[in-house]
Amino acid sequence: MQNKIEALIDKHMSTLSATKVSLSSISSEELWQRSGRLEGRDSEFLRLQDRKGAKYLLSPTHEEEITEIVASSVKSYKDLPLRLYQVTRKYRDEARPRQGLLRGREFLMKDLYTFDVTEEEARATYDQVRKAYSAFLDELNLPYLVANADSGSMGGNLSHEYHLASANGEDNIISCKKCDYSTNEELYSGTLGSHELSQPDSSLKGRDINSILTSTPFLSKDKTALFNIITPKDSGPLNTHLLKKLHPTIDTTLEAPFKTWSALNTKNPTRPRTETQVLDGRLAHLPLSNPTGPTVTHHKTALTSPSESSTCPSCLFPASLKVSTAIEIGHTFHLGTRYSVPLNAQVLSSSNKLAPISMGCHGIGVSRLLAAAAGLLMDAKGLNWPMKIAPFGAVVVAAPKTAEQDVLKVYDALALGSPGGALASASSSASSTTAPLDVAIDDRDRPLGWKLNDADLIGYPFIVVLGKAWKARGAVEVQCRRLGVKEEVTLEDLVEKLKGWEKQL
Amino acid sequence: MQNKIEALIDKHMSTLSATKVSLSSISSEELWQRSGRLEGRDSEFLRLQDRKGAKYLLSPTHEEEITEIVASSVKSYKDLPLRLYQVTRKYRDEARPRQGLLRGREFLMKDLYTFDVTEEEARATYDQVRKAYSAFLDELNLPYLVANADSGSMGGNLSHEYHLASANGEDNIISCKKCDYSTNEELYSGTLGSHELSQPDSSLKGRDINSILTSTPFLSKDKTALFNIITPKDSGPLNTHLLKKLHPTIDTTLEAPFKTWSALNTKNPTRPRTETQVLDGRLAHLPLSNPTGPTVTHHKTALTSPSESSTCPSCLFPASLKVSTAIEIGHTFHLGTRYSVPLNAQVLSSSNKLAPISMGCHGIGVSRLLAAAAGLLMDAKGLNWPMKIAPFGAVVVAAPKTAEQDVLKVYDALALGSPGGALASASSSASSTTAPLDVAIDDRDRPLGWKLNDADLIGYPFIVVLGKAWKARGAVEVQCRRLGVKEEVTLEDLVEKLKGWEKQL
Repeated sequence: MQNKIEALIDKHMSTLSATKVSLSSISSEELWQRSGRLEGRDSEFLRLQDRKGAKYLLSPTHEEEITEIVASSVKSYKDLPLRLYQVTRKYRDEARPRQGLLRGREFLMKDLYTFDVTEEEARATYDQVRKAYSAFLDELNLPYLVANADSGSMGGNLSHEYHLASANGEDNIISCKKCDYSTNEELYSGTLGSHELSQPDSSLKGRDINSILTSTPFLSKDKTALFNIITPKDSGPLNTHLLKKLHPTIDTTLEAPFKTWSALNTKNPTRPRTETQVLDGRLAHLPLSNPTGPTVTHHKTALTSPSESSTCPSCLFPASLKVSTAIEIGHTFHLGTRYSVPLNAQVLSSSNKLAPISMGCHGIGVSRLLAAAAGLLMDAKGLNWPMKIAPFGAVVVAAPKTAEQDVLKVYDALALGSPGGALASASSSASSTTAPLDVAIDDRDRPLGWKLNDADLIGYPFIVVLGKAWKARGAVEVQCRRLGVKEEVTLEDLVEKLKGWEKQL
Repeated sequence: MQNKIEALIDKHMSTLSATKVSLSSISSEELWQRSGRLEGRDSEFLRLQDRKGAKYLLSPTHEEEITEIVASSVKSYKDLPLRLYQVTRKYRDEARPRQGLLRGREFLMKDLYTFDVTEEEARATYDQVRKAYSAFLDELNLPYLVANADSGSMGGNLSHEYHLASANGEDNIISCKKCDYSTNEELYSGTLGSHELSQPDSSLKGRDINSILTSTPFLSKDKTALFNIITPKDSGPLNTHLLKKLHPTIDTTLEAPFKTWSALNTKNPTRPRTETQVLDGRLAHLPLSNPTGPTVTHHKTALTSPSESSTCPSCLFPASLKVSTAIEIGHTFHLGTRYSVPLNAQVLSSSNKLAPISMGCHGIGVSRLLAAAAGLLMDAKGLNWPMKIAPFGAVVVAAPKTAEQDVLKVYDALALGSPGGALASASSSASSTTAPLDVAIDDRDRPLGWKLNDADLIGYPFIVVLGKAWKARGAVEVQCRRLGVKEEVTLEDLVEKLKGWEKQL
């Protein structure tokens, strides 16, 4: 599978004229110091020293290394654009490695780095990569989401995440049913619609104010400030991503903030401290004064996490949001000059001026994609691989004592495409993206039922059985668990039939 | 190239029914402690700790990991034989990394591990692997040597090294022109022929004894013993590998042993010490008594390094040896139960008895092979890749202003095989080992000469030029630097012509 995904990636990278490279998994700390990414992220690195005491780290990503190489070999605007990618092992000392390949400390990643003369060209490159990513994911025939994303520590200000929709996903993707808004929950702004702002909710009138709101305390990291977050009752959990953005000093990890606050104040009653009341925009109309300190009202913002009843922050349509759990399998970043400036990667422009290269970086989690696809399609009987990454598109399984030449006849029909015409070449004439069908034969000396169970477990897209129907009528049984297919097919029709089903896998 | 070598390896591993796996580059120290390979080799490992302080190392090889996995999943003789291989990055903290990919601290290696029920079956497997290795190396069309090898720290007692003959090689391979003796110099036994033993060399008679022999001092590692190695004068440098085997306490690294010896004795004249005289077999007939201590005579052994005038230790034919410098690119080991016993990898035999699995391990240095092949075939103009691992078998280079459709016509003739018949399919019908010809087009906007120089530098096996002859007569010029070919060829003959030359590349 890994090879198949890599080959599929190679194919789509070639549409970008990207060249495949292979950088070392080991990088020197000194280089990361120069880019400013070593400090503050210490715990994420797996570090090592050689016999001379030189300091290295196992690279989680390769912006530094590739920029350094390009800086030393590219001199003129004529050498650009340049697109370099690799599929190599990366390392991150995860605090909580879990779910096998989904979040491991060693992972296989495709990383593409793009180098353009101008910001404008780099942004055009970014759009080309977006198209290549969509074309790649389309081929997998799996439900995926593209979300606007915070570029975080990578720099730049244009970024997208690619997700496979999955019930087990760790990410929440918020999208709008009415417009093309789609983002990671971490970036959801909580913008309220006018229907939520213009007038007081009549249902609140005359009720005890404490029955209509929830107050949640947080302390600042230095424990000198208390924040009481006031939201409408039953409006859902607080949006801690947003709170941290609005009030960066807030510590959302403390377990019993009010208890800590009281204990500190009892111990030192005169210590300097503030108590701030933070108001959800939906409560702006209520007469909520703060007896012990200032009130901050976020007039147009919900402080709770988005739900299906939330307003779309983009088109402002009420109750239009959809929340999908998903697994991130790709991430693209426009980097601009974030790395080319500190690492001195510059070219002479056509007007003979030195300028820093404008960069982008674009990842696909290869081992992650493998695990996500497995989790997405598996059922109680076993795995189900998407056709494009299945190690074999079909397995031929015969009842004991079936003549070997019969098995080979069926194998040839599938792999070479006779007698029904070449599956591979027929498919590839219809669409250049269809690869030949790789076929396996299970010739182990075991009962038919045992081998069929094993084939289900392994997850071949098609199981082709030479059983009773073969002996009686020379027909095979085609099984495709994913499509609910279990059908008797003559050898003549086999290739055409599979071609029809294949499109849905 | 790396992909091409890997694909070629995959092909030959499949002839062994070997399954491709991918183990982590990181291994736990605890596992290496259990196999007994952690102690004493400390300085070779690149080690690291995670955020919890757990101790890991970057694996230089994977016997421990794979044995552990097989031990936990294989229970019965019915599950064997099993052959597992991978092509992954390995690590070794080399004291002197040098010559780029030839001896780096990070390297790409193919490692195959074989698991059999009995020693006998494991040895049969070993022979199959030898055949697969030869078939693989035959395809590269490069001169290679197979040498008997010491299995060193790997255990077992059956081992071969695979070398590419190279003037820059670090290894000396000793082979016999008369029999099939072939070994690494490190294993050369120095066995003398009867012509060297039976009678005193008459030329020595009546001469000053010091004019016919050389004495070389060595100290023992604890510096309490002096060894005077006495060899015939002008018989070449001492064979230190052999000396260390015959006298394991000898320290061959000390720079001025006699000076050190004298200084120690002057400082402490009564310290316990011995002075041993060690005699080369060719001097056994001389009256050489040792006034200060014992004499050890190696009656049938030369203590000097082998040369073209040495006797073959196997067939004892005089002056029959050949010494070739070479680069090791593969190594096979029969391991027996070296790892299966300490790591508890055992199966129930057909007679229901638990027995340790008999193992083998078989490496190919992929990045090393790449560098060795490059070094072997390069000349002053650039690289020359063997056809089977060249990124492209041919490049089409056209003079400026050549019509694009002309270039594509030549490309199609090469890649698709028209009009002269399909090169790929014609070749593969002749031999199943021939892959299709991958063709590149250099369509960069540069002068023809510049592009031809660049093509020479890159090392395409064939350069197909659309130059003056194309404009005048519709003929291309085929260049093949390795074969000294520069020939005008019509489009009709092109494919057949290349097929002929290709066999020699």
